[in-house]
Amino acid sequence: MSDGTIDDAATAFAPPMLGEPYLLTPGPLTTAAAVKQAMLRDWGSWDGDFRALTAELRRRLLALIDDRDGAFDCVPMQGSGTACVEAMLGTLVPREGKVLVLANGAYGLRAAQILRYLGRAHTLIDKGDYLPPRGEEVAAALDADPAITHVLVIHCETSSGILNPVQEISEAVYARGRKLLVDSMSAFGAVPADVNALRYEALVSSANKCIEGVPGFGFVIARKSELEAAQRNCHSLSLDLHDQWKVMEKTGQWRFTPPTHVVAAFIEALHLHEAEGGVAGRGARYANNRNVLVAGMRAAGFETLLAERWLSPIIVTFFCPADPNFSFPRFYDLMKAKGFLIYPGKLTAVESFRVGCIGHFDAHVMRAVVEAACRSLEEMGVASAAPAPHVLGERARLVA
Amino acid sequence: MSDGTIDDAATAFAPPMLGEPYLLTPGPLTTAAAVKQAMLRDWGSWDGDFRALTAELRRRLLALIDDRDGAFDCVPMQGSGTACVEAMLGTLVPREGKVLVLANGAYGLRAAQILRYLGRAHTLIDKGDYLPPRGEEVAAALDADPAITHVLVIHCETSSGILNPVQEISEAVYARGRKLLVDSMSAFGAVPADVNALRYEALVSSANKCIEGVPGFGFVIARKSELEAAQRNCHSLSLDLHDQWKVMEKTGQWRFTPPTHVVAAFIEALHLHEAEGGVAGRGARYANNRNVLVAGMRAAGFETLLAERWLSPIIVTFFCPADPNFSFPRFYDLMKAKGFLIYPGKLTAVESFRVGCIGHFDAHVMRAVVEAACRSLEEMGVASAAPAPHVLGERARLVA
Ligand SMILES: Cc1ncc(COP(=O)(O)O)c(C=O)c1O
Ligand SMILES: Cc1ncc(COP(=O)(O)O)c(C=O)c1O
Repeated sequence: MSDGTIDDAATAFAPPMLGEPYLLTPGPLTTAAAVKQAMLRDWGSWDGDFRALTAELRRRLLALIDDRDGAFDCVPMQGSGTACVEAMLGTLVPREGKVLVLANGAYGLRAAQILRYLGRAHTLIDKGDYLPPRGEEVAAALDADPAITHVLVIHCETSSGILNPVQEISEAVYARGRKLLVDSMSAFGAVPADVNALRYEALVSSANKCIEGVPGFGFVIARKSELEAAQRNCHSLSLDLHDQWKVMEKTGQWRFTPPTHVVAAFIEALHLHEAEGGVAGRGARYANNRNVLVAGMRAAGFETLLAERWLSPIIVTFFCPADPNFSFPRFYDLMKAKGFLIYPGKLTAVESFRVGCIGHFDAHVMRAVVEAACRSLEEMGVASAAPAPHVLGERARLVA
Repeated sequence: MSDGTIDDAATAFAPPMLGEPYLLTPGPLTTAAAVKQAMLRDWGSWDGDFRALTAELRRRLLALIDDRDGAFDCVPMQGSGTACVEAMLGTLVPREGKVLVLANGAYGLRAAQILRYLGRAHTLIDKGDYLPPRGEEVAAALDADPAITHVLVIHCETSSGILNPVQEISEAVYARGRKLLVDSMSAFGAVPADVNALRYEALVSSANKCIEGVPGFGFVIARKSELEAAQRNCHSLSLDLHDQWKVMEKTGQWRFTPPTHVVAAFIEALHLHEAEGGVAGRGARYANNRNVLVAGMRAAGFETLLAERWLSPIIVTFFCPADPNFSFPRFYDLMKAKGFLIYPGKLTAVESFRVGCIGHFDAHVMRAVVEAACRSLEEMGVASAAPAPHVLGERARLVA
């Protein structure tokens, strides 16, 4: 297979500037030069030219969910993704609501922490690090507790890379007359969230994930009827999604100073996203990145945390080698010296590291990552990439 | 006076790119090309290189208040300035605290609105649009209400341009054993906030004001003892300044994804700020901008809202001409066509517009602004720039 040649013909991914590493850290992630160059001018946030950018941003994001009936709207919000998750929960869950949080990693637990801050009633299904929440257990939890009004699911749990089964969860939720909120931070733009195929009230994502913009704001895509009903729910002025929406509808402006340059970069990123074939095209490239990465790393002796069917095209968790010569900080530095920033693991129980598949690069880069990982092990004097047998044993037991 | 020549020798302010207007809208404001160029690379937020940027940012901002005893710390926070005001109030005011808000414009009123959202006790001195809150009335309010624990003052009330007398207010506050919080959003970096000369517990500002960065985050500079005592005060996870501080102290990282490119731009802006002579140098340029602007506009027949002594070097409010041919939207467009974005007024009672004096430009630009304003009036067929006599009468009555 002359895959190098085929890929070369198809690729248009210039490497980062000289000396700049690839960010396999989703995200911030590696963005296209054109995205960054869009930040080379200043915009007046009150001006009509910037209002046009805001309108385009909202329109293009809505197009990604194929909202044919115009039932949804898109509300961008300043701040990091966590602020947008908090805005979604604080605004769309009524004060007397109760949220079932489906956790299988750091971001599910963080959503529960937000609800604790807000003093909103909630309950948790915590599946640990390895396993997805399933439709039947959601159904059982909802049947057991009629007070639950909303369910929050993490689309791709970025702390492990697990792609949660949102379809069966949505079915369980709506069969019981409850409402679904989706943290699609790291999935939106590459994993479908088409409202004609998947039912939900709102989802949240941010500029610096699969759309490949730079960080500085996020957005909530929500059913208009939910936004409308949410007046005076929110615990915070700056995170009040209802208010942000109302003002934006009326004036075309963000209520408070928007990150103008980041918004301009995002518009460019949305153009590139469309040119790549939208969600399907983006998702296909990431899946290919993931396939090449996983195959290469496995061939080198590394093991993935997750069973095949839950591996997302977003980020992959590998166990750290058991060899006593392996040290993650050392591995990090060696990989960085070769031009790749990887992520530490975010698991509670076992040593791991993560490699992102999202960003402005393709399978060529993934092959280079595998090569760099092998060379780094050599440089550390690590003979085998295999994790400790007990780790694999535990995984086999849990995933069974 | 051959001022042109003198200024030419001293200036290093390249105009914006071709076709890009000056932003006289503080802010976002016009930034240096070098500041924007610093955004042309991607940073891993977990990486040591970015942690070094964060440490430099905090160190350089603290240096601006000359905190010789190391009693203060600087906590940057994602989001717009309003989010940072909310973070400061929500974190540093205990749940049982009570805040006296000194309002003389939109931003004072917004602080009160934040406290309403938070359900924190507060009371208001509202001076309307023209007048500063004074030390004696603050003293009287504090004497009358022993429940008040904190006073919030707006350093420069950007909605009118008034520079509030923070020194006499601080003295009144601390003579009564209360605590002062300062919204120095539009003043910090150009108006002194030296802790050896002015007493306060915390101040808040943002990236896109007098330091001349691009928007995307703000920062609170607070006494460490206040930050330390603030655990579990905050109503919001994403706005919890105590938590942000603790995590940053421990890991050198922002808790949640920072706007990496905006931070890199800000570091460059801090370097330019230092090169210009810090707060004194920056303040002197802005004051000169203001002087040239006000003198030129007055010579053209415009009148300022504020009496001389309250005019800030940040932004100046002018009354709209009374001539029936004058229309602000038209004036805005004509000024934009000449390369200048100005701001609408933010006054409740009378028609006005605002011109910012802050940003990457000097008095040359201010002269060009005056010229553009005169030509725009001509093009509208406005014979005189004078406001309605009753407006001036009211101003005289109120300011007397
Ligand atoms: C699924 C998910 N939720 C929430 C977040 C939080 O986003 P941020 O770091 O921008 O606050 C992330 C960040 O990676 C995420 O992946
Ligand atoms: C004094 C003052 N406070 C608060 C703010 C709010 O900042 P932002 O628009 O970034 O939310 C501003 C903005 O201009 C301001 O001038």
